[in-house]
Amino acid sequence: METRSIDDILQEFLPKNELKEVNRILYGDQTNLSYLGSEEQFSYDIEKYRFTAITKNEQVPRITKIAAIQHSVVLPTDRPIQDQKLQIFKKIEHMIEKSSELGANIVCLPECWNMPFGFVTREKMPWCEYAEDCNNGPSTMFIKRLAQKHAIVIISPIIERDNADLLWNTSVVVSECGTVLGTQRKNHIPTNNGESDYYTHGMSGQRVFDTKFGKIGVTICFDRHQPQNWLMYALNGAEIVFNPAATSATDSWWPIEARSAAFDHSYYVVAVNRVGIEKFHLESGAEKIFKPFGSTYISGPNGSRTKSLSTVRDGILYAELDLDLCKQMRETLGLNQSRRLLYYKNKWTEASSNKFLPQIIQKLQ
Amino acid sequence: METRSIDDILQEFLPKNELKEVNRILYGDQTNLSYLGSEEQFSYDIEKYRFTAITKNEQVPRITKIAAIQHSVVLPTDRPIQDQKLQIFKKIEHMIEKSSELGANIVCLPECWNMPFGFVTREKMPWCEYAEDCNNGPSTMFIKRLAQKHAIVIISPIIERDNADLLWNTSVVVSECGTVLGTQRKNHIPTNNGESDYYTHGMSGQRVFDTKFGKIGVTICFDRHQPQNWLMYALNGAEIVFNPAATSATDSWWPIEARSAAFDHSYYVVAVNRVGIEKFHLESGAEKIFKPFGSTYISGPNGSRTKSLSTVRDGILYAELDLDLCKQMRETLGLNQSRRLLYYKNKWTEASSNKFLPQIIQKLQ
Repeated sequence: METRSIDDILQEFLPKNELKEVNRILYGDQTNLSYLGSEEQFSYDIEKYRFTAITKNEQVPRITKIAAIQHSVVLPTDRPIQDQKLQIFKKIEHMIEKSSELGANIVCLPECWNMPFGFVTREKMPWCEYAEDCNNGPSTMFIKRLAQKHAIVIISPIIERDNADLLWNTSVVVSECGTVLGTQRKNHIPTNNGESDYYTHGMSGQRVFDTKFGKIGVTICFDRHQPQNWLMYALNGAEIVFNPAATSATDSWWPIEARSAAFDHSYYVVAVNRVGIEKFHLESGAEKIFKPFGSTYISGPNGSRTKSLSTVRDGILYAELDLDLCKQMRETLGLNQSRRLLYYKNKWTEASSNKFLPQIIQKLQ
Repeated sequence: METRSIDDILQEFLPKNELKEVNRILYGDQTNLSYLGSEEQFSYDIEKYRFTAITKNEQVPRITKIAAIQHSVVLPTDRPIQDQKLQIFKKIEHMIEKSSELGANIVCLPECWNMPFGFVTREKMPWCEYAEDCNNGPSTMFIKRLAQKHAIVIISPIIERDNADLLWNTSVVVSECGTVLGTQRKNHIPTNNGESDYYTHGMSGQRVFDTKFGKIGVTICFDRHQPQNWLMYALNGAEIVFNPAATSATDSWWPIEARSAAFDHSYYVVAVNRVGIEKFHLESGAEKIFKPFGSTYISGPNGSRTKSLSTVRDGILYAELDLDLCKQMRETLGLNQSRRLLYYKNKWTEASSNKFLPQIIQKLQ
């Protein structure tokens, strides 16, 4: 009954040469991308890759090692909140430890990693109760301890409760010293699935964190459908943008959106999705099932990408990224060079006012 | 020695159910997309599709029928200009006639359809000699005659020579009455392949032509790498954006960029590429080969897409589009609803000035 990934299907049925050509189209030029193999743990998969830069003289590669973790909830969604959180903490502690053993410098968890994605119920309780303070809440304290212990940066997407009891969908970025470097709130909240009942659009911009391991940004789930949002991370100088997500159903554009953005802006994109089956018992008595499909993957600034993790199993996607590939793509392909921001600025200003006249041409009668 | 399309490969090797799953991921939800079959002419292929809107009460479908033509040059590239043009005219006259027979209301030709794509030589002559006046040049006169004869709109991408002998990469949009409705100049000129030696960035915006058959925009080739450009067509109300192109080599993002843009902005995108092999004899005595890979396809506003035309043969991609699917996606998915232009306008204004301070967060030392 498992949904097989298309990689598994292609691998099984295509002869070697045909598989190579299909992969070239699906995953881009693989010259700078090597597969380093897999490891199977008892309860999750590990897949390993390396992105190299274009060969260059006299320059030392600037390598950052990252791990994207996709995981499922552990207990049924109607169990006490503390129990559910603790069981997820246990699993994540192990997976972060493993990521560190692999050599990761930066670890990213999926959207709302510490809870079931109960917003699909459109019921306020108990889901609002999962929200935490970003600096001293139990999830951040837990992540701080692991970041310091392993000397790694950790991106921890949770629901934030602020001083005024307003909720936000927020990623906490914790430094390798175990301190909160800052937060990034979700900029675009969907209006078609219940989420906008719980939290609102962030106003903190598209921050780039200049970490020990490279300049990174975080943009949460639905934000990836807004091209202007991806662009701001490029303007702010990001080399890696993480996209923690909770995405389900027949979302066939997942495999291409992060890749398009990576190519358009010459940065790496790490698309990290939840996985597993979450069952909710609604007040009406009905049952609601949320089934995020995993498929975590990484796309390079040259449009090449890794295969996806499983659609049903937990996993760690580990990759070594030469960050200089960003600079090299900007220099050789030059999409940044032809951006023409000045040309757009007035149109955008008009378009966001009530004076906007769309540029429409009609035939003279 | 032909390069096979990945569709041909998948069709040959995958069992029926596996093919269905792979196609769902590669081409999106096919619920609203039907394949109407193919026709093989002596020298080119015809593929036919229909995009329907979501079932709705009491509304008449708003159908526009389009044809995207991909073709190769006819004579060797060193033959007299007039001869080369005339042979292409002959071929195109036949293909437009066939498109009209199929029922097309709007026909789009590829970038610089009336000439070899000599800009890859980086030599000025004779390529500049192909430029024409957009209103009364021989190519526009030819297109006007066909548009009027068949009562169809034709998008004719050529090199424009203006009154001051400045060249532009321009699409002429001709109405079903055979008059020039207006032009759209290429907004973003690549700086990595020679093109910027010949013509410069257009200043005419992202026009939407409110034709008898729907609101259409045209954005030429490299423009598709700039997300801010796609967005402006959405703000101006486009229902179909045509992307005539001259794209070659290992460009594995071609299959996903038009699809990403269509989904992000809830409009149809018709990606029309040149095809064939063009050999150029350089002044240095060397030979330069340009080999655009065809692969013309159409993506719907819901992220579904047709398969691609051949990578090597001429072809017509015909499709019936229910334009109401744009409105329906805007209403149900609501990506336009969460665009937040006001939130971006000041950042863009800053980013296009020399006062821009990127939003970078560093650890306190």
